[in-house]
Amino acid sequence: MGVENSIKAFGEVMMRLEAPDYLKLEQTRELKVLYSGTGVNILSALSRFGHATSLITKLPNNSIGDGATAYIRSLGISTSDILRGGDYIGMYFLERGFHVRSSKVTYSNRKESSFCTSNIAEYDLEKSLKQTSMIHFCGIILSISEQMRYNALYMAKKAKQLGIKVVFDFNYRPKLWKENKAQAKDCYESMLEYVDICFMTEKDARYILQMGDTEVADRNQQIENVIPSVSDRYQIPVIAGTIRENEKDGRNRIRGFLYHHGSLNYSQTYEYQTLERVGAGDAFSSSIMHGLSKNLSTEEMLEFATAACVLAHTTYGDSPVCSEAEIWAVVHNKEVEMER
Amino acid sequence: MGVENSIKAFGEVMMRLEAPDYLKLEQTRELKVLYSGTGVNILSALSRFGHATSLITKLPNNSIGDGATAYIRSLGISTSDILRGGDYIGMYFLERGFHVRSSKVTYSNRKESSFCTSNIAEYDLEKSLKQTSMIHFCGIILSISEQMRYNALYMAKKAKQLGIKVVFDFNYRPKLWKENKAQAKDCYESMLEYVDICFMTEKDARYILQMGDTEVADRNQQIENVIPSVSDRYQIPVIAGTIRENEKDGRNRIRGFLYHHGSLNYSQTYEYQTLERVGAGDAFSSSIMHGLSKNLSTEEMLEFATAACVLAHTTYGDSPVCSEAEIWAVVHNKEVEMER
Amino acid sequence: MGVENSIKAFGEVMMRLEAPDYLKLEQTRELKVLYSGTGVNILSALSRFGHATSLITKLPNNSIGDGATAYIRSLGISTSDILRGGDYIGMYFLERGFHVRSSKVTYSNRKESSFCTSNIAEYDLEKSLKQTSMIHFCGIILSISEQMRYNALYMAKKAKQLGIKVVFDFNYRPKLWKENKAQAKDCYESMLEYVDICFMTEKDARYILQMGDTEVADRNQQIENVIPSVSDRYQIPVIAGTIRENEKDGRNRIRGFLYHHGSLNYSQTYEYQTLERVGAGDAFSSSIMHGLSKNLSTEEMLEFATAACVLAHTTYGDSPVCSEAEIWAVVHNKEVEMER
Amino acid sequence: MGVENSIKAFGEVMMRLEAPDYLKLEQTRELKVLYSGTGVNILSALSRFGHATSLITKLPNNSIGDGATAYIRSLGISTSDILRGGDYIGMYFLERGFHVRSSKVTYSNRKESSFCTSNIAEYDLEKSLKQTSMIHFCGIILSISEQMRYNALYMAKKAKQLGIKVVFDFNYRPKLWKENKAQAKDCYESMLEYVDICFMTEKDARYILQMGDTEVADRNQQIENVIPSVSDRYQIPVIAGTIRENEKDGRNRIRGFLYHHGSLNYSQTYEYQTLERVGAGDAFSSSIMHGLSKNLSTEEMLEFATAACVLAHTTYGDSPVCSEAEIWAVVHNKEVEMER
Amino acid sequence: MGVENSIKAFGEVMMRLEAPDYLKLEQTRELKVLYSGTGVNILSALSRFGHATSLITKLPNNSIGDGATAYIRSLGISTSDILRGGDYIGMYFLERGFHVRSSKVTYSNRKESSFCTSNIAEYDLEKSLKQTSMIHFCGIILSISEQMRYNALYMAKKAKQLGIKVVFDFNYRPKLWKENKAQAKDCYESMLEYVDICFMTEKDARYILQMGDTEVADRNQQIENVIPSVSDRYQIPVIAGTIRENEKDGRNRIRGFLYHHGSLNYSQTYEYQTLERVGAGDAFSSSIMHGLSKNLSTEEMLEFATAACVLAHTTYGDSPVCSEAEIWAVVHNKEVEMER
Amino acid sequence: MGVENSIKAFGEVMMRLEAPDYLKLEQTRELKVLYSGTGVNILSALSRFGHATSLITKLPNNSIGDGATAYIRSLGISTSDILRGGDYIGMYFLERGFHVRSSKVTYSNRKESSFCTSNIAEYDLEKSLKQTSMIHFCGIILSISEQMRYNALYMAKKAKQLGIKVVFDFNYRPKLWKENKAQAKDCYESMLEYVDICFMTEKDARYILQMGDTEVADRNQQIENVIPSVSDRYQIPVIAGTIRENEKDGRNRIRGFLYHHGSLNYSQTYEYQTLERVGAGDAFSSSIMHGLSKNLSTEEMLEFATAACVLAHTTYGDSPVCSEAEIWAVVHNKEVEMER
Repeated sequence: MGVENSIKAFGEVMMRLEAPDYLKLEQTRELKVLYSGTGVNILSALSRFGHATSLITKLPNNSIGDGATAYIRSLGISTSDILRGGDYIGMYFLERGFHVRSSKVTYSNRKESSFCTSNIAEYDLEKSLKQTSMIHFCGIILSISEQMRYNALYMAKKAKQLGIKVVFDFNYRPKLWKENKAQAKDCYESMLEYVDICFMTEKDARYILQMGDTEVADRNQQIENVIPSVSDRYQIPVIAGTIRENEKDGRNRIRGFLYHHGSLNYSQTYEYQTLERVGAGDAFSSSIMHGLSKNLSTEEMLEFATAACVLAHTTYGDSPVCSEAEIWAVVHNKEVEMER
Repeated sequence: MGVENSIKAFGEVMMRLEAPDYLKLEQTRELKVLYSGTGVNILSALSRFGHATSLITKLPNNSIGDGATAYIRSLGISTSDILRGGDYIGMYFLERGFHVRSSKVTYSNRKESSFCTSNIAEYDLEKSLKQTSMIHFCGIILSISEQMRYNALYMAKKAKQLGIKVVFDFNYRPKLWKENKAQAKDCYESMLEYVDICFMTEKDARYILQMGDTEVADRNQQIENVIPSVSDRYQIPVIAGTIRENEKDGRNRIRGFLYHHGSLNYSQTYEYQTLERVGAGDAFSSSIMHGLSKNLSTEEMLEFATAACVLAHTTYGDSPVCSEAEIWAVVHNKEVEMER
Repeated sequence: MGVENSIKAFGEVMMRLEAPDYLKLEQTRELKVLYSGTGVNILSALSRFGHATSLITKLPNNSIGDGATAYIRSLGISTSDILRGGDYIGMYFLERGFHVRSSKVTYSNRKESSFCTSNIAEYDLEKSLKQTSMIHFCGIILSISEQMRYNALYMAKKAKQLGIKVVFDFNYRPKLWKENKAQAKDCYESMLEYVDICFMTEKDARYILQMGDTEVADRNQQIENVIPSVSDRYQIPVIAGTIRENEKDGRNRIRGFLYHHGSLNYSQTYEYQTLERVGAGDAFSSSIMHGLSKNLSTEEMLEFATAACVLAHTTYGDSPVCSEAEIWAVVHNKEVEMER
Repeated sequence: MGVENSIKAFGEVMMRLEAPDYLKLEQTRELKVLYSGTGVNILSALSRFGHATSLITKLPNNSIGDGATAYIRSLGISTSDILRGGDYIGMYFLERGFHVRSSKVTYSNRKESSFCTSNIAEYDLEKSLKQTSMIHFCGIILSISEQMRYNALYMAKKAKQLGIKVVFDFNYRPKLWKENKAQAKDCYESMLEYVDICFMTEKDARYILQMGDTEVADRNQQIENVIPSVSDRYQIPVIAGTIRENEKDGRNRIRGFLYHHGSLNYSQTYEYQTLERVGAGDAFSSSIMHGLSKNLSTEEMLEFATAACVLAHTTYGDSPVCSEAEIWAVVHNKEVEMER
Repeated sequence: MGVENSIKAFGEVMMRLEAPDYLKLEQTRELKVLYSGTGVNILSALSRFGHATSLITKLPNNSIGDGATAYIRSLGISTSDILRGGDYIGMYFLERGFHVRSSKVTYSNRKESSFCTSNIAEYDLEKSLKQTSMIHFCGIILSISEQMRYNALYMAKKAKQLGIKVVFDFNYRPKLWKENKAQAKDCYESMLEYVDICFMTEKDARYILQMGDTEVADRNQQIENVIPSVSDRYQIPVIAGTIRENEKDGRNRIRGFLYHHGSLNYSQTYEYQTLERVGAGDAFSSSIMHGLSKNLSTEEMLEFATAACVLAHTTYGDSPVCSEAEIWAVVHNKEVEMER
Repeated sequence: MGVENSIKAFGEVMMRLEAPDYLKLEQTRELKVLYSGTGVNILSALSRFGHATSLITKLPNNSIGDGATAYIRSLGISTSDILRGGDYIGMYFLERGFHVRSSKVTYSNRKESSFCTSNIAEYDLEKSLKQTSMIHFCGIILSISEQMRYNALYMAKKAKQLGIKVVFDFNYRPKLWKENKAQAKDCYESMLEYVDICFMTEKDARYILQMGDTEVADRNQQIENVIPSVSDRYQIPVIAGTIRENEKDGRNRIRGFLYHHGSLNYSQTYEYQTLERVGAGDAFSSSIMHGLSKNLSTEEMLEFATAACVLAHTTYGDSPVCSEAEIWAVVHNKEVEMER
C-alpha cells in the first residue's frame, strides 16, 4: 500500500473571455469567463477518470490568479504545485462563429504572462515530480521563448531520469513559429529525446520533422507510412492522434489511430456535432493516457479515446468534463448503430 | 459661419472587466465589460453638453479595438482621430467592495498597450489639432514611460502654439512613481509650462510640486495658501478641484473650488452617495471646461461642476452620462434644501 | 351557500419596461418586463387575502395581450372579464434613480391603447357586474378622454344601482389635466356621486375639490378640517389615505388615516425603506377594502393597511404580493418596537 | 482634397424588443432591446466599409430617443442630422420561431411615431443634403401616410436636383397597402422618377408595377424578362436584388442579380444558415452601393454583396456588422469550395 | 345557459430546475425554474383552446407552493382545487444534452412530496368533480405507492359514476415498476375499468397488458393488431397515440393514430425538430381531448393533435403554449407542402 | 519532516437555491445555486488561511453530488473523504428580505438526504482521521436523528482517542428540538465530553445546559458568569463566541469573546453591514481555530476572528472567501479609526 501516484502537466493557464450568444465583441456588454489550457484540459479529464492530478504552472498572485486557481480546483486538479507571482495571466477573447462566419480568437498579452516569463529555478522539481507516474507537455511551449524551451526540456529530462513517463502533444501552430521552421524542427527533436507517449498526426511529421511522402494522396496511407518511422527514429513506443474526415454531406466524422506495440490501429468512425470545438483533442489524448495507465486493450483504448473526443465536442468549455460511464455509453451506442 | 470647434483629449482607453453583484473574481463566471479612461470620461460629459468631441489615442486593430471604438462612439465621441495598430488594450478588473471590504482593481498589461507603446510620429497632429478649442491631458500619462512623457509634452506644446487651450489633470498616483518623486516634479513642471486650465488639490501641490505649508492643519487654509501660488508660479489662470469632507456621521460630502480671475471661490457643500466611484472627478473637470467655454459665471460654473460630480456618483460606469438639465436639477434641489 | 362574491376593478393594464441595475435606457441592451396598473395592483393584493378578483379592461389580441393576461393570472386575478381587441397596450419605461438622481418614467402611446380607445358598449356589464361586491376605479381614467370619463361614470352608476360598493382612488396627477383644473373638479364630482369608499388626501381636496383651509400650516390639522367635510358634502361614508412625513434625519416615515363611522383615526407611524416605490399606495387601499369587507375594527384595519403599504415598498414590482401573515408580522414587530 | 462625401438615408428608427431564447412573450420577464430600420442597417454596413454616413430621421426627445441615438452612434453612423421631438418611437416585438413555429412580429404604435408624424419643413435639407453622394429611401415609407409620401418624394426630388444619387428599395409589404394596390403603383412610380439605383425583384415588378409575364414558370426567366424593362421604362440605370431558392433538401440557397450597364448578371449560388433573418437584404443593398461608389467590377460587386447577405444571416441584430475582410473571406472560401 | 363545464386533471406538480445553455449541473451557478407535470401540461393546452380547466393536486403551504401556484395560474389553469399542506414538492433537475450526449434528469424527493403523500380523504371530491366534463389521470401515479394507486382508482371510479369522461395516459416507465411487472398489469387493468379515452402505444399493450404479437416486425401492423383488441377487451371507445419513426437520414418524423368508432386512422407524417422534448406527447393527448369535446372529425382531430405535438417540440417548457390558430397553421403548411 | 496535518469537518452539504434581486420565489424564473453547510464554511475559511482541509460527508452519486463536489473543491477543500451514494442532497430555498420584510428560508427534504441517512460504518474512519489535527462538528447534527447523533458521538470519541482536537459549535436551533429540551441537554452533554474547543454564547448555556443566572440583566455579566462555569464543568479549555449589540441608531455592532487559559477576553466592537448574513459566525469560529493552531496571542486571535466575521457579512455566499491579509486590513483600519 502507499500514496497513489499522480499525473502532472507542465503548461500555461489562460483566461478565456467569451462573447455570449454568437455576439461579436463590439455587440456585448458582458463576457463569460473560464480558465483553460492544454494541461488543464488533460488533467480535468484524467481527474474524472479517478487519477490524482496536479498542474505545474505559475499564476499571478492577485485576484485573477485566485480565480484561475479556484476554477482549476473545481475541475478536480490539485493546485499545490502552482507557483504564484509575476504580473499577468495570458488571455484570449472568443467570439463564436456561426455557419460561414468563423469563430475568432483574439489573444491578449500571452508573452508577458507569469507562466511565460517564469524561470525553471523557481519550480520545486524535487517536490513536484515526486510520486508522479506521467507528465504532460504541450508543443506550444516550445514556441514561446528560448527560456520556456529551456524550462520544458529541463523538466522533461528530469522527469525521464526519474522514470516518469513523458507525454508530449505536438500541437504545432505554424503562426507561432513563422519563418523559423528549421528552429522548430530542432526544438521538437530535442524534446522527442525524452518522450514516451506522443500525440501527433502525419502533418506534424511532414511540417516539423520533414518526414513522410507527400506524393501519397491518401491520408491513411500517409499515416501508415510515417508514424511507424517516427516511432522508430525517435524511439517513441506510443504514438496516437485523430483524423477528421471530409464533410461532403455536411456531417463531421472522426476516427482515432494508435501506434502501440509496433502496430497501427484505428478506431471506428464516429459522427460528431460541435457545441465547443476547443479541447476536443485533449479529450482524446487524456483518454489514451488513461488507457495506458489502466492497461486497457488497444481496441478499448482507441474506442474510448475517440468517443471521449466526440463527447468533448458536446460539452461547454475547453476542459473535458465527462465521466468514464458517459464515454462508454457513446462507444456502445455507436456499436449498436453499427450492428444495424 | 464655419465648422464648430471641437474639444479633444489625448489619453488611454482601458477595457474594464467587472465582477457583477459584489462578487469576487473567483466567484463569478461572467464579467461586465465597458471601456473608459480619463479622456473618454471628459469627452463623454462634454458631448452631452453639446460639444463636438474627439479622442486622440491608439487602439489595437482587432475585435477588442472594434469593441472599444463602438463603445466610445455610443458615448457621443468621434473616433476619427483614433489610430489602429499595436497589440493590446490596457485592462483593469474591478471587484466592487461592500462596506469594510474595499473595491479591488487588478491591472492587466497596461505598459504593453497600443497606446502606451505608441510613438508621437504616428499621430497626424496636423489633422487632429485642426479646429480644436481645448485639449485635455491626464497626469497618469507622465508616469508610464519616457516615450509617453515625450508624446504628451510634444502634443501639449504643439497645441499651445496653435492657440488651443491646454487642460491638465494632475491625477497623481504615488504608486506609479514609486521612489522617483523628484522625477515626477520635473515631469509635471515641464507639462505645466503649457497648461491653461489645471485640475489639482493642495495635496498635489505638496507631494509633487513641494509647495504649501504642511503645518497648517485646516484643509481650506492649505488650499487658500497654495493654489494662488501655483497659479502665480506656473502662470496658470484657472485651477480647480474638489474637496471631500470627513464622514463622521456616515454621510459623504463634497464641495468644489475654483481659482479664476485671481480669486478663489467655493461651491456649496453637497451630500453624495455612491453607485460608482470612478470617473466622478472627471465629471467635475469636464463641467468646468464646459463652463469656461460657455462663459458661465464663476458661481454657476462651480455649482454646476460640483453637482455634475455628485450626479456622476449615481450613474453606472466611469463615463458621465447626465445631461445639463439633470445636473441643474441637482443644483436647484440643493438650493431649495439650503433655503429651508 | 352560493358562489363567492368577487371584487372587480375597471382600469388600464400597462406594460412596464425597466432598465436593470440603475442603468439609464441608453446604457442597457436588456429590459425587465412586467404588467401593472392601479386595478391590477389592488386586485393582486386582494386575491392574496383570499378574495375572488377579476379585472375589467381591454387588451390587444396579440402576443402582448397574451403576455399581459398570463402575468395578471399569475397574480391570482381572473381574466375572464377582459376584452381582447384594439391595437396597443400602454407602456412605460422605468429608469431607476439613485440618491439625487430621480427615477425617470417615459410613457409610450397610452392614449392609443386598446383600453383607452375602448367603448362602454363593448363591455358585457351584465356579466361582469354579476356577483360583485366591490368595484374599484382610479382617478387617472377621468383625465384620459371624454370617452373614458363616460365609460367610468357609466359603469360606476351601473354598479351603484346594483348595490355594488364603488371604490374610488383620487390619484390626481396635475400634469394630466394641465390647465383644465375646472374640468377636473367637474369630472371628479360627477364620479363622487357614486362613491362609497374613497382614497385621497387633503391635497386632493384642495387642488381638485377646492376645499380646505390653506392657511392652516399643520398637515394633520388640514386633514382633520377637510376630510369630514368631503365625507359630508359628497355623502361618502369611508375616506382613507396615507401621510408621508418629512425626512429630516434621512429616514422615511408614513402613517395612515381612516375616516369611518364619522370619526377620523390614525395608524401608528411606521418607518419604511424603498426597494420599489410604485404601487405602495395601492397596497394601502386594497387593505382597507379587505378590512371593510371582513369587518375588521378600525384600528386593526388601519394598522394592517399601513403595514401593507410599508411592506409593498420592500417587494419588487408595482403589484403587492405579500400575504396577510406577512403584513401582520410587520404590525406586530412594530408594536414590539413601540413597547420598548 | 476636401471633406469626404457622406452617404445618407432618410428613414425610420424602430425599437426592437426581443424575447430571448426562443421564448414566447408570455414566457419571459426580460427582453433584449436594440434599434434598427432599413436606413440604420444600410448605413451600419456602409460605415464599416469606410464611408462617412448619417441618418436623417426624427426621434423623441426623451430617454428612448437617447437610447436610439447612442445605439446608432455605436454602429458608426452620425446622428447630427437627427431631429429630436414628437412623442414616440415605433416599436416591434420579436418572438423568434423554431422550425415549424414561425417568428412573430408584433408592432406597437408605428403610425404615431415622431418620424411618421414629422413634417418635411422641420428638416434642414440645406444642411443635411450638403456634401452627400448618395441617399437611401425604403419603400415602406410610401405606405405610412400621405404626409410621409410627400416628405419622401420632396426629399428625393431635392436630392436628385443636387446631383445626389437616389437609392430606393422597393420593400413592398402587401399588408401595409391592403386593397390600395392602384395607389401603391402611383406612389412607387412617383418615386421612381428620381431613382438612380433600385433594389427589387420580379415580384415587386409584378405586384406593384404590373409588369412581367406571369405565365413564365421559371423565376430566372421572369427576372430576365422584366428587370431590363423596368430599367428602360423608368430610366433606372442600376437594379439589383436577391433570389432565394427552393429548399428541397433542407438547405437554404441564395444568389444575387445586378442589372448594370444594360446587362443582367448573377452571382454564384451560396448556401446560408440563419441566426438572424432581418436585415440580410440590407446587407446586399448596402454592398452594391459600396461597390458602385468604389467602382468595383460587376462580378466583384455581385459576389461581395451576396456574400455580405449570407454573412448578415450569421450575425445578431438587424444591422450588418461585418467588415470587408470578413465578407471577402466568404467569397473566397466559396470559390475554393466551387473549385473542388 | 349555465356555467361552463370544466376539464380537470388529478396529478403531480413538479419543480423543474434546469441548467442553462447545455451546461452540466457542475458547470452552472444558476438554474432556470418552472413547474410542470402531465396534468399541468394537458390543462395548459386545453385552457389555450378555450376550456375552463382546473388541477386537482396538493402542494406545500410555503413559498415553493406559492411559486408553483402562480406559475400554474399563469398558464390559464384554475388553482381552486389545489390543496395546500405537506412538506415538499417533487423536483427534477434537467441537464440538456447535445447530439450524442443525452439529456440527464435527476429526481429529488418525489416520493415524499405533498402530492405523493396525500390522502384521498383530504380532497373535496364533491366540490372538485362538480361541473366537470372530463378528468385526466397519468399512469405514473400508479407506480408511486399503494396509497396513490388507491387515490387514483377511487377518484376515477367516482368520476365515472358522475358521468365524467375518464381520460388515462399509460405513460409506462419500466424503471418505476422494476421487477413488479405483474403488479403493473393488475394496477393498469384496475384503472382501465373506468377509462373512456386512453393514450397508449402498442408497446404499452405488450409490456403491461401482455397483448400483441411480438413476431410481427412491422410497427403499424402491431398497432393494427393490438389496439382494437385493447379497445374491445377493456371496453375503451377511444384510444390514441403517436408513432415516432426511424431517423435514417437524420430527420425526425412522427404521426398520430386514433382508434375511434371502431376504426383505426392515421394522421399524415410530420417532420419535427426539438427545442424541448418533454411534454410533446401531452400536446397530442390534450388536442385529442379537445377534438372529442368539440366533435371534430376524426381526420381533423388527428391532424390537429399531431401538429400540436410537432409544435410543442418547438416551444420552451414542458407545458404546451400554442393557440389553435398556430396549430392549424402547421397543419395547413403541411398540406401545402404535401400538395407540391 | 512529513505530510502536513489536515483540519477536517464532519457535516452536511446543502444545496442553496436563491431567488435573485430580492424577488419572492413566485416572482422568479431563475435561481442562483451554491452549496454550503457549517463544515463547508469552516473549511473554506481555513483553506484560505493555508491549512489543508477535508470534508467528511456523504453526497448522492449523481449530477447534484457532482455539482456539490466541484463547488467544494473550488473553495479549496479536499473531497477525498466524501462518500458517494444515497438519494438526495438537503436543499434550502432563500428569498432575501429587504428592511421590514424578513429573509425567508424554505427547506426541502433534509431528513432524507444522503448525509442524514448515512451510517457510521460506511465511513473509513481509519483513513479519514489520519494526519488530522482538528475536527469540527456542528450541533445541528445532534437534532436530526438518533442515528446521526450516534454517528457524531462515535466519530468525536474516536477523534479524541487519536489526539485530534475536537471542535464543537452549539448552533442551537430550538425549532429543531421542539419540546425535547431535556433530550437536547443530554445529547449536547454527551458531545461535550469529547470537546476541546467550543463555540457558544450564554444563551446556549441557559437554554440547553440550563446554566446561568437569568436574573442578571446585563449580557456581558451573564457571559462572565456562565462561560467559565461551562469550561469548568465540562473541562473545555477554549470557549468563544460573538455578541451582536442593540441597534438603536440603525447601525449593527458586534464583538467577540474568548475564554482561554482561564480568562475571558473581548475584542473591540466593530460596526458591520450585511450583504450576506449566513456563515458569518463560521468565519469567527474558523478564525479562532486558525489562531489556536498558529499560536496567535489571545488579543490577535480575537481581533482577527471578529474582523473575519465582519468581513464575512460583506461577501456573497455562506462560505467565507477572504484572505488573512484582507482580514488584517479590517483590524488595522479599525484600530486607526479608534486612534482618531
